[in-house]
Amino acid sequence: MSSQTGGETTREQIENGAQLMPKFDATGLLTAVVTDASSKDVLMVAHMNAEALALTQQTGIAHFWSRSRAQLWKKGETSGNMLNVLEMRIDCDQDAIVVIAKAAGPACHTGETSCFYRRLEGEALVKVTS
Amino acid sequence: MSSQTGGETTREQIENGAQLMPKFDATGLLTAVVTDASSKDVLMVAHMNAEALALTQQTGIAHFWSRSRAQLWKKGETSGNMLNVLEMRIDCDQDAIVVIAKAAGPACHTGETSCFYRRLEGEALVKVTS
Repeated sequence: MSSQTGGETTREQIENGAQLMPKFDATGLLTAVVTDASSKDVLMVAHMNAEALALTQQTGIAHFWSRSRAQLWKKGETSGNMLNVLEMRIDCDQDAIVVIAKAAGPACHTGETSCFYRRLEGEALVKVTS
Repeated sequence: MSSQTGGETTREQIENGAQLMPKFDATGLLTAVVTDASSKDVLMVAHMNAEALALTQQTGIAHFWSRSRAQLWKKGETSGNMLNVLEMRIDCDQDAIVVIAKAAGPACHTGETSCFYRRLEGEALVKVTS
């Protein structure tokens, strides 16, 4: 970014560099995948804008951008089921992030531990137990 | 969908129903998170359109929609590093899917096992070993 000399950011810098250069999409968002630090299950998929990412880094509590409400979303602010972030990992092209977290309660608004509580069986969905 | 009587699909049907009703976004895509069946690590994040989802279900090999190339993408078709899908799970609002897979080789085009090979340390990125 600004600290790079010589103009444009290269693919090499993005993929192999040691500097965070998040590639927000046209709506200013990264895809965020939250996993449980203990079970390693995927808990939820959400989105982060620059502010949500910064707040997550500053506070250690996961923040997202709610696309449906079009506002910053501190996960668990009303339910109490916050996500304590232990580590974040970014992908090769820096447009997606894995948030490894300790969940204070169910991650899903339905009360399920994970939002991914149904597996596909053709066109049918079957509740999973793990 | 068409098999539901009484018109509109309800939130109850989407969240608690036993029928797959994928909610593709404005560009016709679901977010797909691929995890390794053994390590449970997140390997990559990609997207599926209806055709990619159907082909994945029919063949057991992960297919995606490549947004950069704007074409169907059978992962590993050129590299050989295909993803054998053991299970797929959909989230509460049916707009994201977890693909639990056995990878034939590195999932990342960089040669890394996972695309998420760097953790955030403030604005710095540090290579992870696990």
